[in-house]
Amino acid sequence: MNDVLGTWVDGVAGGGVPVDDRGLQYGDGLFETMFVRDGRVRFLEAHLARLALGCARLGIPFKVADTLRGELNAAAASAPMSGILKLVVTRGSGRRRGYAPSESARPRRIVTLFAAPAMGALSHQGAHLRIATHTLAVNPALAGMKHLNRLDNVLAASESDDEEIFDSLMFDTAGHLVGGTMTNLFIVHASTLATPFVDRCGVAGVMRGVVLRECGALGLTAREARLTRGELFAGDEVFLTNARIGVVPVRRVGEHSFRMTAVAQRLRTHIEALDA
Amino acid sequence: MNDVLGTWVDGVAGGGVPVDDRGLQYGDGLFETMFVRDGRVRFLEAHLARLALGCARLGIPFKVADTLRGELNAAAASAPMSGILKLVVTRGSGRRRGYAPSESARPRRIVTLFAAPAMGALSHQGAHLRIATHTLAVNPALAGMKHLNRLDNVLAASESDDEEIFDSLMFDTAGHLVGGTMTNLFIVHASTLATPFVDRCGVAGVMRGVVLRECGALGLTAREARLTRGELFAGDEVFLTNARIGVVPVRRVGEHSFRMTAVAQRLRTHIEALDA
Repeated sequence: MNDVLGTWVDGVAGGGVPVDDRGLQYGDGLFETMFVRDGRVRFLEAHLARLALGCARLGIPFKVADTLRGELNAAAASAPMSGILKLVVTRGSGRRRGYAPSESARPRRIVTLFAAPAMGALSHQGAHLRIATHTLAVNPALAGMKHLNRLDNVLAASESDDEEIFDSLMFDTAGHLVGGTMTNLFIVHASTLATPFVDRCGVAGVMRGVVLRECGALGLTAREARLTRGELFAGDEVFLTNARIGVVPVRRVGEHSFRMTAVAQRLRTHIEALDA
Repeated sequence: MNDVLGTWVDGVAGGGVPVDDRGLQYGDGLFETMFVRDGRVRFLEAHLARLALGCARLGIPFKVADTLRGELNAAAASAPMSGILKLVVTRGSGRRRGYAPSESARPRRIVTLFAAPAMGALSHQGAHLRIATHTLAVNPALAGMKHLNRLDNVLAASESDDEEIFDSLMFDTAGHLVGGTMTNLFIVHASTLATPFVDRCGVAGVMRGVVLRECGALGLTAREARLTRGELFAGDEVFLTNARIGVVPVRRVGEHSFRMTAVAQRLRTHIEALDA
């Protein structure tokens, strides 16, 4: 049942986390979910750069160092053909009770290697989505980061237990599309891509960044935008991204079916061929 | 340095928490902070009722049972004259990766007993507060609960390291007063108390509930309201509540000084005399 292949806390295999860890007590930390292919972490430096940015924004004094790179690479090398590597960095153990961080807290890093479940026909048949009832609050101070305060995602993902549904789309309280609980989303119009801003809520996904960077190589242009429900359904094509799935077309959102034209497939092929 | 007197995970002393605990991974859980006086937990049933309500709202299948009461009472009995008992309940270990809870997850309970730091002259001299720059997003689905997604509180509390400041007051993004990072707040006008609603953000503190329930016994009336910065500064008197401090008058918010009239002191004396 359990697909965990290994766990390391501050570089030590196995074990748990002390109960005074601020990640547990307050969700005071960040995480990265990385894809391992052929024993290597895909887009490792992009993940580490996002982590470093999040630490800076939260004031967590964690330095991304070669020690961490070495641990991640060693874990990846121990994976079967493919795997998922999750890195959690918390502010560490609180030396005293209370929200204010104590200066003596040392950040803690937690690495878990999972077997990667088979993607099956998802990339060819496309994903079925639903729209979550739960909406996201606008919170610029936390927006964009992959922090550990993820109850919104848990609530949205809990709304349906339909196994045909790959992900639930979330809107913010102002009515703007944010993305899936575990994915970013792009809407295609001819050769132009639009993806929601992540400055008020949502996560700046690493694969989202790769698409924004690489689309020019395919003659596509991309922009960030405030997108409504109407604009979602007016798209020629819609696709999802995350580190695990790469680029996956959307076949259906609720009762609305999308064409599955060539853009997502071209991006997918292009990105899979990148040596990163 | 460390003021922890004991820790119990699912009733077992010591130890840590597995890294796959959803409290750590997503902040998927709730907590209670209780005050222990003379070996007994104050307002235990009110804390447990709030916990049960939060579990129901989050769909965490945790039953408040006599096992838990026994553990909390035993921990309290081992405390010195006074202590602080923190109970964290998480959705337990995820059996698979991902936000959607698996049906097989068993909630985990984590109890920590702390020495209670001396209150010093706080209740007589009154608290100094500041106003946090960080504002709270309006999120009715999470409002009122003492859940583990507390990065907002961490960020607000991190803004100042002035040791004279007891707490930082938070407003929501619509400009309404919410309370302190670790306290609820009441504004007094003559014999009427007003405290912010907790239906859009904030926490429904147990001591806040005690004040709302008990104020009639002192000839006071209380209401929940949407309160602005102007109404805060127009108050005859302002006081804070939480389980640890009880009722504490506010002496100053930033440069604004408040009178410290009798209402907070009367409530404090009345509530301290309650056998609960």
